[in-house]
Amino acid sequence: MNKQSLKQSSEQSFILKGNICYSKSREELACIEQGFLVCVDGVSQGVFRFIPEEYKELEVIDYGDSIIIPGMNDLHLHAPQYTFRGTGMDLELLDWLETYTFPEERKYENADYAKRAYSFFAEDLKNSATTRAVIFATIHVPGTLFLMDKLEETGLKTLVGKVNMDRNCADFLSEQTAEASLEATRLWLEQSAGRYRHTAPILTPRFVPTCSDDLLKGLGQIQKEFGLPMQSHLSENLSEIEWVKDLCPWSTCYGDVYRHFGLFGTPEKDSLSLPSSLSSSEPLSSSESLSLSLSESNAKSIMAHCVYSSEEEIDLMKQHGVYIAHCPQSNSNLASGIAPVRDYLNRNLNVGLGTDIAGGASLSMFRCMADAITVSKLRWRLVDQSLKPLTAEEAFYLATIGGGSFFGKVGSFENGYEFDALVLDDSRMRTAEKLSLKERLERYIYLAEESGKLIGKYVGGKQIF
Amino acid sequence: MNKQSLKQSSEQSFILKGNICYSKSREELACIEQGFLVCVDGVSQGVFRFIPEEYKELEVIDYGDSIIIPGMNDLHLHAPQYTFRGTGMDLELLDWLETYTFPEERKYENADYAKRAYSFFAEDLKNSATTRAVIFATIHVPGTLFLMDKLEETGLKTLVGKVNMDRNCADFLSEQTAEASLEATRLWLEQSAGRYRHTAPILTPRFVPTCSDDLLKGLGQIQKEFGLPMQSHLSENLSEIEWVKDLCPWSTCYGDVYRHFGLFGTPEKDSLSLPSSLSSSEPLSSSESLSLSLSESNAKSIMAHCVYSSEEEIDLMKQHGVYIAHCPQSNSNLASGIAPVRDYLNRNLNVGLGTDIAGGASLSMFRCMADAITVSKLRWRLVDQSLKPLTAEEAFYLATIGGGSFFGKVGSFENGYEFDALVLDDSRMRTAEKLSLKERLERYIYLAEESGKLIGKYVGGKQIF
Repeated sequence: MNKQSLKQSSEQSFILKGNICYSKSREELACIEQGFLVCVDGVSQGVFRFIPEEYKELEVIDYGDSIIIPGMNDLHLHAPQYTFRGTGMDLELLDWLETYTFPEERKYENADYAKRAYSFFAEDLKNSATTRAVIFATIHVPGTLFLMDKLEETGLKTLVGKVNMDRNCADFLSEQTAEASLEATRLWLEQSAGRYRHTAPILTPRFVPTCSDDLLKGLGQIQKEFGLPMQSHLSENLSEIEWVKDLCPWSTCYGDVYRHFGLFGTPEKDSLSLPSSLSSSEPLSSSESLSLSLSESNAKSIMAHCVYSSEEEIDLMKQHGVYIAHCPQSNSNLASGIAPVRDYLNRNLNVGLGTDIAGGASLSMFRCMADAITVSKLRWRLVDQSLKPLTAEEAFYLATIGGGSFFGKVGSFENGYEFDALVLDDSRMRTAEKLSLKERLERYIYLAEESGKLIGKYVGGKQIF
Repeated sequence: MNKQSLKQSSEQSFILKGNICYSKSREELACIEQGFLVCVDGVSQGVFRFIPEEYKELEVIDYGDSIIIPGMNDLHLHAPQYTFRGTGMDLELLDWLETYTFPEERKYENADYAKRAYSFFAEDLKNSATTRAVIFATIHVPGTLFLMDKLEETGLKTLVGKVNMDRNCADFLSEQTAEASLEATRLWLEQSAGRYRHTAPILTPRFVPTCSDDLLKGLGQIQKEFGLPMQSHLSENLSEIEWVKDLCPWSTCYGDVYRHFGLFGTPEKDSLSLPSSLSSSEPLSSSESLSLSLSESNAKSIMAHCVYSSEEEIDLMKQHGVYIAHCPQSNSNLASGIAPVRDYLNRNLNVGLGTDIAGGASLSMFRCMADAITVSKLRWRLVDQSLKPLTAEEAFYLATIGGGSFFGKVGSFENGYEFDALVLDDSRMRTAEKLSLKERLERYIYLAEESGKLIGKYVGGKQIF
């Protein structure tokens, strides 16, 4: 890294030089060798082949032959499951929750345990490719606040949820009554209010089986009152779906339960569109302002999995602008199945990726992209040949803009996007001949853990490392 | 690493101390915390809770809290595809070969290119978890010999094949006639004879579509003459199987073509059985002598993939003691499907694992184990619920003894096994509470690339690093 100039630059205004890749659309990847990526006050000004006159005084950080890409957005993971990831991978969802997950989450009532375990999680997440994440904690308020404290220190942007659950789980992890669960939620919201710059609360009913109608109704009221986003699980496993039918016989589908209680987001007016102009010494593109800051994202909801969503549920998700967190490794590890992501993309639903720690064992969003491609191929082969497999470009789009748009104008280097960036060193992936930049990026997706190295990370213009 | 004693030990006689795991059977994993693994003249004497009197003078290498396991045996990979792994993952098998693989393999006619690329491959394989491997080269004799030279230097045990192909491929990679291909094969065998201690040739017709009947017939004669093992591909992809039916209408199934030309191995007399005694200060088990050295394995064949083998083909494989190289990542990447490994295990067929570089992008046998488990779960969910998913213990068995037995008495720490061992540092996989040794091993399988570290490697008693 060679700092060519230190003149006239604020901490969050600078230029990165290197091999730059970012999505221009779902299918199109922009690849600029030795380009200049300009950040002013934490916002991208675009990618240039030469430094435009107005930015000549900014510091240039030269990353040599490294690859610079937008940050990765993990739409679904469970922080308290992090330290047991990669163990107990022999059961399906409902038994897995009972046998491994709930006993583990119980431990977070102990402050010492929570501090130790959440510190490991926050440190490893900081060092990962993830720049923004949407995270489940446990039912415990002190533990959840401690997790938010630790995440705040990392500089990453995160949404964190204290979990709600008042039925169908062991006594040790149940909040017992809807009232108690709602009261704890209000306490948590009070205590976290005004405490964080990078971290914000998100309402988090675990899933319908563990949340009574009264609890969901109360959370719907809190949603209106506080204007918060919401996350939960949806149609992950066939037994789970049957169970929801039994529990809420009045519902038209699983997703209808969340909708009924005002927890499915509100209908979207605009969908994200990106212009795709590219010319040298001009911003590679500019885009109209559609900035959605964290505080404006209040009507949004994320539903993890959606492996078996019915036509009716898909329509509901479309109407309400629901974000689908596709979690390919988790859906494989828990033998849930493979979500029809191609179908969701064809219908222009909002889709991002999630590692779903610890249903997924890996914290890596690169691995998550590769898994999304791989399972889509197996689904094409084994289930439905009318739905084409995902391409590397599409998986990259999902991990960057797909999930990033939940946070606002995030996930690209187009002009006006919040400046989240990763710097990748692929020098250990040796080849006998020069590869194209696009080939190098594709290979990095597959081999990140085996021989990649993340050497730089920026979130909202702030250098994390 | 603390060398407690240096008295009276030959280079290949020593004791490793650490947390030791190895398979006692397909379902049973032996896990001994702080045990002693004794190696005398390159052969394991077993695992002990205390050092037996007769070994008191041997050097003890103390690996502290690390995990010690048998080496991994990769039954199928293509060395010339290594440097383009992780790119061009958007096509199915036959188009993938035409578009990416054959043009890449052509480059190995150039000695400089072959030297550069094979050097990278050999160095990375040396540093990987693989202790033994069965490898495809290309049609080129000088390149194949250079690959064997480089692999010999690593100290790993490898079988390497000059590829045969004389039809249905671009001119630039065809040996044109059966005679030319057979002549080149004899030249290669002459030139490699007596040249290596750790490396040996294996006959390698690419697959039936690219090998004429005359070529296969000639290779069958060479097999008899030289007593060599043989490797190829079998029933990987549905279009491939149809093609073979067209090419060899006289055959009863794809595998029958290899059998017809004497290239399917000879019927096995004994199947591998392992006793499972375990007592402290005694060898944890002893096993009858069924040592098959490399030179005795001459009638054996390895068939990669077997995703769609018919009943008849399965029976033929059983009769001939064929080794199936299950390559889960490759079968997913090329959208081939998922092999019914549980069925093969139920029928007591010989099964090992293969990374299949570059159909598989990852060189890691840990990743290969995790993938084998994962795809077996998806197969159970999506294809056939009568075949249970693989467990972590079973995947571990396949990677160690399953593939190791192709090389002889390899893949375990039972008394009499060749001493191949790996030392794993899992200290970066932090937990808030102590895990059992078995849980640590399971987690290492899933997280090896993300946060594991291979800190020691032994092959046949020789320390590689």
